[in-house]
Amino acid sequence: MLHGVNQITIIGTGLLGGSIGLGLRDAGYQGQIMGLGRQRQTVEEARLRGCVDEVCTDLGAAVRDSQLVILATPLSSFQTLLDQIAREDHDDLVITDVGSTKQQVYAMARQRLPQPARFVGSHPMAGGERHGPKHARADLFRGKPCIITLDDDTDRGARLLVEDLWTQLGMRLIHLSAEEHDRQVAVISHLPHLLASLIVELASDQGGLEIASTGFGDTTRVASGDPKVWLDIFTTNQEAVIHAIDVFSDRLATFRQVLTRDDHRSILEFLQRSKEARDRWPKTGFDRRRSTGSD
Amino acid sequence: MLHGVNQITIIGTGLLGGSIGLGLRDAGYQGQIMGLGRQRQTVEEARLRGCVDEVCTDLGAAVRDSQLVILATPLSSFQTLLDQIAREDHDDLVITDVGSTKQQVYAMARQRLPQPARFVGSHPMAGGERHGPKHARADLFRGKPCIITLDDDTDRGARLLVEDLWTQLGMRLIHLSAEEHDRQVAVISHLPHLLASLIVELASDQGGLEIASTGFGDTTRVASGDPKVWLDIFTTNQEAVIHAIDVFSDRLATFRQVLTRDDHRSILEFLQRSKEARDRWPKTGFDRRRSTGSD
Repeated sequence: MLHGVNQITIIGTGLLGGSIGLGLRDAGYQGQIMGLGRQRQTVEEARLRGCVDEVCTDLGAAVRDSQLVILATPLSSFQTLLDQIAREDHDDLVITDVGSTKQQVYAMARQRLPQPARFVGSHPMAGGERHGPKHARADLFRGKPCIITLDDDTDRGARLLVEDLWTQLGMRLIHLSAEEHDRQVAVISHLPHLLASLIVELASDQGGLEIASTGFGDTTRVASGDPKVWLDIFTTNQEAVIHAIDVFSDRLATFRQVLTRDDHRSILEFLQRSKEARDRWPKTGFDRRRSTGSD
Repeated sequence: MLHGVNQITIIGTGLLGGSIGLGLRDAGYQGQIMGLGRQRQTVEEARLRGCVDEVCTDLGAAVRDSQLVILATPLSSFQTLLDQIAREDHDDLVITDVGSTKQQVYAMARQRLPQPARFVGSHPMAGGERHGPKHARADLFRGKPCIITLDDDTDRGARLLVEDLWTQLGMRLIHLSAEEHDRQVAVISHLPHLLASLIVELASDQGGLEIASTGFGDTTRVASGDPKVWLDIFTTNQEAVIHAIDVFSDRLATFRQVLTRDDHRSILEFLQRSKEARDRWPKTGFDRRRSTGSD
């Protein structure tokens, strides 16, 4: 397991970073796990919960002695962090992240790192609206999909190490290009988040929250996500999100037409198609037991 | 409890009708509970589960001997049922329903019943995507909101009886006009259902279902609802749903503009407003423990 990795540095020890540490310990990882973060208190809390072994304040030193660095902060910190990592980069270092968008992250890695081939983007589809190390759990990732994004230059050893990491945490690996990743998450994650937030705002403005029940609760749960994290997501995946909005708006307009002209058959067919697709999902692997949700 | 009511007839013994029967028994109701439905097998299944005492095939006879009739079928059967009830209507009879839209139901009741003042519309916000008496539960309604729609002519005794029914089942009563009910459910239930169904269809057509995780699962769970039930809902609440689509589309277009012009501040403010509203919900009463969901 994680062969040759004596030290791992987790930058950002919130829900995701903290759960990686707990999960690695649970899987039997014996090396050192260093924790780093902007807020000392959060890292200290993660240490007390056993997510990391040591609170580290010197990123350079941590990178020098690590064979794996995991970026688990909001996307807006990545540029600065990659610059700092670049200064201490070494041939045995593999870098990965947990960011929700990938094309911009790859662009940054190529621009900032001396050897971007040792950067392997990953997106574990776990997390959700709670945050902070107090919600971290060793089994947060178990049974869920993790997207590994590769490009033509990706170092084979780096790829295998990152795949090993997520496999040890129980994830089901899926390989996509950064572009395809961003397109798909715009549809299944970013657009649903936007729609949920708009519904909450609409109900809040126009009335209805008092009569809303569990259906509304489930449909809009994601709207409780961290606004800063989601600002980063929408802005770093701007193009794909706008495209998803456009396709979605067209389909919404089509439904409006169909409803207006009392075309019961088309409405029923649409609802049946959607129900069948939803009932079939998830086909494979994904663990349906409720957990802390995902982004 | 349900003073003077020796017999209740539940028409439609699926999830909602069946749960009413179980809940009434659980609350200590001692009278007779008759079950009626289009599919004999479903009513028989409800009887075997203890939801009703007797499978009844003669609606006229059941109405004659009952003091309370509950319409728990899809909305599309209401017209025929109200006509049949009208033939056996008597002064001691109170009629209620569990329909998800109300203005059309009231219009039908006024048109079909000899004494529409003894019809009191209700909408228990419980149920969800599962159906059939096998999912019926005595506590399905507990802690959830039930909307009672009244008009100026509503008989006071009838109103009190229907309020007693839902209170016995543990619901939190909310009074709205049929028009206001329809407007609010369009925003907090019908529109969210439509958006969830559209997202599933989009992801199904464009790819992304394989990487989707619990966030997607929660956001789209309602899309597994019965297409025929939802066809009835959309078509009987056409005007309010179209209005909700229009307001929603405007807000979606506004977000698109804001994202296109990189207006980070407006995006963040919107996400914060929505998160705060979602975090505050539900303020009172509503039982957050997961159950079978709601429509």
